[in-house]
Amino acid sequence: MAKDIVEDTVDKLRLDSERLSRQLEFIIEIDKLKQILRQTVLVDKSRQENDAEHSWHLAMMVMILKEYAPEGVRIDRAMKMVLVHDLVEIDAGDTFCYDEKANLDKRDRELKAADRIFNILPQDQAKELRDLWDEFEEGKTVDALFAIAMDRLQPLLHNHYTSGHTWAGKIRKDQVISRMSKVKEGAADLWLVVEEVVKEGLKRGYLKA
Amino acid sequence: MAKDIVEDTVDKLRLDSERLSRQLEFIIEIDKLKQILRQTVLVDKSRQENDAEHSWHLAMMVMILKEYAPEGVRIDRAMKMVLVHDLVEIDAGDTFCYDEKANLDKRDRELKAADRIFNILPQDQAKELRDLWDEFEEGKTVDALFAIAMDRLQPLLHNHYTSGHTWAGKIRKDQVISRMSKVKEGAADLWLVVEEVVKEGLKRGYLKA
Repeated sequence: MAKDIVEDTVDKLRLDSERLSRQLEFIIEIDKLKQILRQTVLVDKSRQENDAEHSWHLAMMVMILKEYAPEGVRIDRAMKMVLVHDLVEIDAGDTFCYDEKANLDKRDRELKAADRIFNILPQDQAKELRDLWDEFEEGKTVDALFAIAMDRLQPLLHNHYTSGHTWAGKIRKDQVISRMSKVKEGAADLWLVVEEVVKEGLKRGYLKA
Repeated sequence: MAKDIVEDTVDKLRLDSERLSRQLEFIIEIDKLKQILRQTVLVDKSRQENDAEHSWHLAMMVMILKEYAPEGVRIDRAMKMVLVHDLVEIDAGDTFCYDEKANLDKRDRELKAADRIFNILPQDQAKELRDLWDEFEEGKTVDALFAIAMDRLQPLLHNHYTSGHTWAGKIRKDQVISRMSKVKEGAADLWLVVEEVVKEGLKRGYLKA
């Protein structure tokens, strides 16, 4: 959870427009996403990645890999989804995907966070972002499936280039394959990337058989 | 400039598709943007902001503030522009906007960087991203003007919330107003935000008269 960041001595911007004030308050609030650290490290292993730069990286992947998206995907919606998909972690924190215990109450923590964070915005925009997040979480539309596939592929690529850093030789091949099944659903033509990374990961001992 | 980050011992992913291999190489290469530090600090002042999280923040601002965009703006294009606008800084580094000397050769450094970085991609995508970057740099279309307005407003807001951190009491009001003139062009209805921040900045001594 990010701590409160605006000093008491700094007044919030006071504008005549209540709508604009709320929009700016939201823009300042989400600066906290830059403080939420993930398990994934940067490719040079110098430090952990944070959620904001991770979200940027996914948006770039949506742009670059769009030709592998399922038919009918609206790229601009998939892009918005990856940009907002981790905002709830400002309150709920990052939950490591292979941490079974932490995942038990993840949904509750994230729902509470969504209620607070999105509602800083004017009502229509709160609904717009909440709908995008809900759609991503449900993972049923092609837009969401493609966005989720990017969210799975990015840390996989980072693992390949960081000697399996988050796997730490403790994660099994079948756990990764199971987690990556979403890539088959959302970007089937990129499944060969998963296969190659897993093959190399086993060969090099990053993954257990 | 970011150092080379992929260890010699880690093989690049080898895939049968030359096109996909180049796309993945680009995706790994741009991880370096997370290492390029800006003058701006996070709202909690704990550290400098990096270009990747800055680009994410701008994309969120494009989404949230789109109602203030000039008529005819294509939001998805403005969003892509802010996502790619700083990629050249992987090689060229961040140039502080009020550093007159560093700005003399900025253009040359960035053009050279653009030639290298975008051309990691397959030719059609290299052109697509280069065109977006050129359009942002030229700043003539409404899409570019709105994107640039967001790129100006974000550090201004950070300055308000960090007691004028990058201004350090050394920058004059007229320098800020001059730099912010792009907000008038790209999001005229948000000019009142500039006025309010500058007014408060003078009152509190963050800015010189």
